[in-house]
Amino acid sequence: MRIGILGAKGYTAGELLRLLASHPQAEVTCLMARVDAPEPVAAYFPALRGLYDPAIEPIDLERLIEQCDAAFLALPHTAAQEYAARLIEAGLKVVDLSADFRFESVDLYEKTYKVEHKARELNSRIPYGLPELFRDELKQAPAIANPGCHTITAILALAPLMRQGELVDLDRIVISSLTGVSGAGRKPSDITHFPECNESVNAYGVATHRHRPEIEEQLSRLAGRKLRLVFTPHLIPMSRGILSTCTAPLRAPWTTAEAMALYREFYAGEPFIRMLPDGEAPRTGAVMLSNFCDISVVVDEHARSVIAMAATDNLVKGASGQAIQNMNLLFGLDETLGLIPAPRRPVAAPAAG
Amino acid sequence: MRIGILGAKGYTAGELLRLLASHPQAEVTCLMARVDAPEPVAAYFPALRGLYDPAIEPIDLERLIEQCDAAFLALPHTAAQEYAARLIEAGLKVVDLSADFRFESVDLYEKTYKVEHKARELNSRIPYGLPELFRDELKQAPAIANPGCHTITAILALAPLMRQGELVDLDRIVISSLTGVSGAGRKPSDITHFPECNESVNAYGVATHRHRPEIEEQLSRLAGRKLRLVFTPHLIPMSRGILSTCTAPLRAPWTTAEAMALYREFYAGEPFIRMLPDGEAPRTGAVMLSNFCDISVVVDEHARSVIAMAATDNLVKGASGQAIQNMNLLFGLDETLGLIPAPRRPVAAPAAG
Amino acid sequence: MRIGILGAKGYTAGELLRLLASHPQAEVTCLMARVDAPEPVAAYFPALRGLYDPAIEPIDLERLIEQCDAAFLALPHTAAQEYAARLIEAGLKVVDLSADFRFESVDLYEKTYKVEHKARELNSRIPYGLPELFRDELKQAPAIANPGCHTITAILALAPLMRQGELVDLDRIVISSLTGVSGAGRKPSDITHFPECNESVNAYGVATHRHRPEIEEQLSRLAGRKLRLVFTPHLIPMSRGILSTCTAPLRAPWTTAEAMALYREFYAGEPFIRMLPDGEAPRTGAVMLSNFCDISVVVDEHARSVIAMAATDNLVKGASGQAIQNMNLLFGLDETLGLIPAPRRPVAAPAAG
Amino acid sequence: MRIGILGAKGYTAGELLRLLASHPQAEVTCLMARVDAPEPVAAYFPALRGLYDPAIEPIDLERLIEQCDAAFLALPHTAAQEYAARLIEAGLKVVDLSADFRFESVDLYEKTYKVEHKARELNSRIPYGLPELFRDELKQAPAIANPGCHTITAILALAPLMRQGELVDLDRIVISSLTGVSGAGRKPSDITHFPECNESVNAYGVATHRHRPEIEEQLSRLAGRKLRLVFTPHLIPMSRGILSTCTAPLRAPWTTAEAMALYREFYAGEPFIRMLPDGEAPRTGAVMLSNFCDISVVVDEHARSVIAMAATDNLVKGASGQAIQNMNLLFGLDETLGLIPAPRRPVAAPAAG
Repeated sequence: MRIGILGAKGYTAGELLRLLASHPQAEVTCLMARVDAPEPVAAYFPALRGLYDPAIEPIDLERLIEQCDAAFLALPHTAAQEYAARLIEAGLKVVDLSADFRFESVDLYEKTYKVEHKARELNSRIPYGLPELFRDELKQAPAIANPGCHTITAILALAPLMRQGELVDLDRIVISSLTGVSGAGRKPSDITHFPECNESVNAYGVATHRHRPEIEEQLSRLAGRKLRLVFTPHLIPMSRGILSTCTAPLRAPWTTAEAMALYREFYAGEPFIRMLPDGEAPRTGAVMLSNFCDISVVVDEHARSVIAMAATDNLVKGASGQAIQNMNLLFGLDETLGLIPAPRRPVAAPAAG
Repeated sequence: MRIGILGAKGYTAGELLRLLASHPQAEVTCLMARVDAPEPVAAYFPALRGLYDPAIEPIDLERLIEQCDAAFLALPHTAAQEYAARLIEAGLKVVDLSADFRFESVDLYEKTYKVEHKARELNSRIPYGLPELFRDELKQAPAIANPGCHTITAILALAPLMRQGELVDLDRIVISSLTGVSGAGRKPSDITHFPECNESVNAYGVATHRHRPEIEEQLSRLAGRKLRLVFTPHLIPMSRGILSTCTAPLRAPWTTAEAMALYREFYAGEPFIRMLPDGEAPRTGAVMLSNFCDISVVVDEHARSVIAMAATDNLVKGASGQAIQNMNLLFGLDETLGLIPAPRRPVAAPAAG
Repeated sequence: MRIGILGAKGYTAGELLRLLASHPQAEVTCLMARVDAPEPVAAYFPALRGLYDPAIEPIDLERLIEQCDAAFLALPHTAAQEYAARLIEAGLKVVDLSADFRFESVDLYEKTYKVEHKARELNSRIPYGLPELFRDELKQAPAIANPGCHTITAILALAPLMRQGELVDLDRIVISSLTGVSGAGRKPSDITHFPECNESVNAYGVATHRHRPEIEEQLSRLAGRKLRLVFTPHLIPMSRGILSTCTAPLRAPWTTAEAMALYREFYAGEPFIRMLPDGEAPRTGAVMLSNFCDISVVVDEHARSVIAMAATDNLVKGASGQAIQNMNLLFGLDETLGLIPAPRRPVAAPAAG
Repeated sequence: MRIGILGAKGYTAGELLRLLASHPQAEVTCLMARVDAPEPVAAYFPALRGLYDPAIEPIDLERLIEQCDAAFLALPHTAAQEYAARLIEAGLKVVDLSADFRFESVDLYEKTYKVEHKARELNSRIPYGLPELFRDELKQAPAIANPGCHTITAILALAPLMRQGELVDLDRIVISSLTGVSGAGRKPSDITHFPECNESVNAYGVATHRHRPEIEEQLSRLAGRKLRLVFTPHLIPMSRGILSTCTAPLRAPWTTAEAMALYREFYAGEPFIRMLPDGEAPRTGAVMLSNFCDISVVVDEHARSVIAMAATDNLVKGASGQAIQNMNLLFGLDETLGLIPAPRRPVAAPAAG
């Protein structure tokens, strides 16, 4: 695969480059971004110094088409709409890391992002890229919309419950999601200024965050009916990682062991889902820099509720690692290429440790 | 007030000392702990070097009684039971920072802490020390049980809703509480080892944390009936601070403005409660080292829920600052002595900023 | 003292406000900055919500003169030059926190800051504000130039050696200074973006930092001859604190005990200098939020060198605390007012702990 | 290579496992440590869950000999002496990560570590494992002593100067070295307790640290005569990384460009040394989790000194990555196997970015 990256200056591009450096079947041939003149990769990603030859160059779609078999769009939302159609038409496989094609309902996208969608007809041809749940429809697609970081983490935590509507009250889900600061992107701001966010925690986007409609749309699809839920993201003084703690009331007695068994079966064989031993809560530190999603579920018998927790690295399973997993799928390759170093056994199996 | 501190080596004792150094009517005359020989304060609290003369000495209850008018018990649970009766009998005012007298139901205490309570009869004479809610009964008490850190933060976030049972579904409260590492105390452990907890987040004590029954007992008291709730604490890579994000379903339409108005009225005149402007979420960084509790409430009309958030410093409003506030009350002093530097106006007023 | 602050939006202004709130003889009557319209203090300093009435208003020098007896200039360099003369002429006491009047040699200032000095004649009337070294000349001055943060820390570490030229090779001093990120000010930048500076350390301004000439000028004054030294600042992933580790070769045998004795005598009676016990190295955490400077000195007999270490809070002793100490001096007040909570004994005494 | 790891519970073992998982020619067949019964890898290294089959088992040297071709000793000092001879005798290639065989002078080892060396005769057969400087002698050795973390970083920063005695005063070197907390190992202590080391910086082991004699011995070897130097390590609130800032006086005029040219030539072709562009200082964040050592050198013409800076990840180039590089050498493999993902060009070349 000759790979091009559009929007090569941001954190998700840096993660794509870090991961693709050890991908056995990918070669990065084009790096393009809104720059005035070519700039070396190390100017933006000093950790990658010496690992990449190509410079980051001004965007030139035709040259990208000529030199690449596939493209990652690591652009802000609205920008991907501009380029996706031409790239797909030229036969490139495309994974879009922005929100532009994440919604089945274009109206919902427009309402959520407060912009007009300029590639409406294309939207229905680009499926939502969550292979653990929708693998089959991804393999034949021309392009994939890569999920949001809070979104994928919360969905993976909750998905096994979506068919358990008799057991779980799906109308009373509460998600508390904790993210590291890299989730805010590369652009400095008051909020991400070290002395402001260090040694402090706060919720943000309370009742208004744009990942909520995305979570609701996908979970509704799994549940077979419209769900509404509470989603409260929090900013945590760490660079990377997302932990989603999801709570729902129970409608009938259930135990932690039963819940864990359901989850283990649901995710059996999934290379990137690691079900933890009973009673162990996921830590974001354990998934840092990896494409794993660590999951655990606890039944709170006292309060008759189920608490599902998932941890990811927001820049890997929550962005660039997932994008590579999706790209592997588009090319019919093993999904784990470039993402798991020589796994010795399937990791979602009901392991004791 | 001649003050003695029992258990003078831990973080809460350090905070008592930091705060009492500027208390105009308190003098610390006794520092006692489980030490073999006297040790200087700076050996445990290098920040306090030069501010205190007395050494930390082995525990000698009779000498403490002789030299003090009041005592803070900054001991682990069970230890306070051992000393409280004698101190009270000798006429000292006592604030106990442990869990020993926090429960109205001694049975609940014994079940929660898995120990036998050895001062059952005393328990009923020691009220729960939350002046914002129960000020009147505190003034005449011989001793006060100081609340837990998650507990006080969550209770202050939720208290105004407890009389709103027609509006809010009190049986479906979900609390997500985020705490800094000092909440785990001074003793090093795998969990608090810097490379383990830095750059990582996890839930702990899921469905089993000992602050849950304490929160439930107090909120039930306010609500006038037994409540059960979900409480999930998380460990955050910062030294201090607690943020409690509390969610409850609505039973009827409500707006953020109405909710904020209810809260502002509920806490009107409270010197340590700061209601934030509408739409601003509390940050733990803004209450660091202070006895303030910053509160905000949002109505999520989409998901028909109310989200109440409170931030405290777990070692101040969540422990030692609250203890000094309570001690001021026991002595009939202005509650804010030693805690607010020359406040220019009542801080709970419905301020615009 | 009716106090005005010019430049009331930055971190040093916030620290002035935090500290002045408990100053028994100061009242902040004017807050002015480059704002378009009045803004509440809490918009910039949420920790101070409720503690201050006056808003931050557009700069109006004549109103400030009318309403204040003294002014802190918390402005960027060059701006202070603009206002200082008028304020002094009007009889206000002035402490300037910028670099504008820190240099005896205006030429050195101009060379270092690469700007023209527009108040040359005033410069000689404004002494360098380091009371531990130059107390006498400060008391009668109309205004004081407050030292830089690295500068004051390094100077306090090295000052006792400056008269020991026979023992110490003053021409081979090497200073390694470690600063928290708040030293970079409030304005967000790539360098202070959390994911960039968290979990990373680097030197900056190597051989070019503007605090070097300031350190050299003051140490030369103490030594009685021109010194040149190496100064390498490093950016550390913490919000506050400076540690200066200063090394100089020995010309004759010396011991740690002798060095510590020299330092203890040199700083005897100084309320803000805390000499640590022999063998204990200063920690910035122990001076956080305080005006203390913790100092220790070690003789390395193997490498025939002396290593002097000092720790301060860069925003307190390194800026606003020092500024208040200087202002107290200008008014003939006890230097410690508003800065030490009820100290029980002189803290620079040769204490064992 | 069938690999065994002795001491498989510590951080360096965890790093060996992380890196070996993607080594194309290594298979980890034995994990042994002081455990009572077999424990899963994930119990100690949750990040590695699912990547390794073998459990961590009690130490059984004969079984290790049977099942492995090579062993990493990730044990505390003194323990390696116990096992090394038997493993070498049995024909295993050995890399020892402890200090046991790092010193040419066994007397210096005994003086530094205050223990008796029990494998004196073996010591001379085990060379010091720094391939960038001593590659030739490593290839034929039966075992290699892996350098200390501060040591390797400081030596790589200074090595090119050691033959420049006419230009640089080698008797006045001052090293300031900043390390993340993982350098203190896995065992929790007061010093590594999060609330103690977070938001604080201090020097430690001033004039007494055990890496000083190791640095001196190796630099003396390079310089051709005995050197003594000042080495001051500092503990920084981050998990990983070491930055060594090394200063030496100049004896003759020199420029940064000349110094950089010398370094670039010295390290030409080295796959793990990255010389930065002129004027750019190394950041530990840029080498995190990699075996790179980023180096830069600045001539301070004002103070007539040279300042050489090197950054490594203390657990990779400073420990386990270096150990794998050394093991590759022992087996005659490409040194970069398992350590650099598909490098596109030699990284030490005089690159512009």
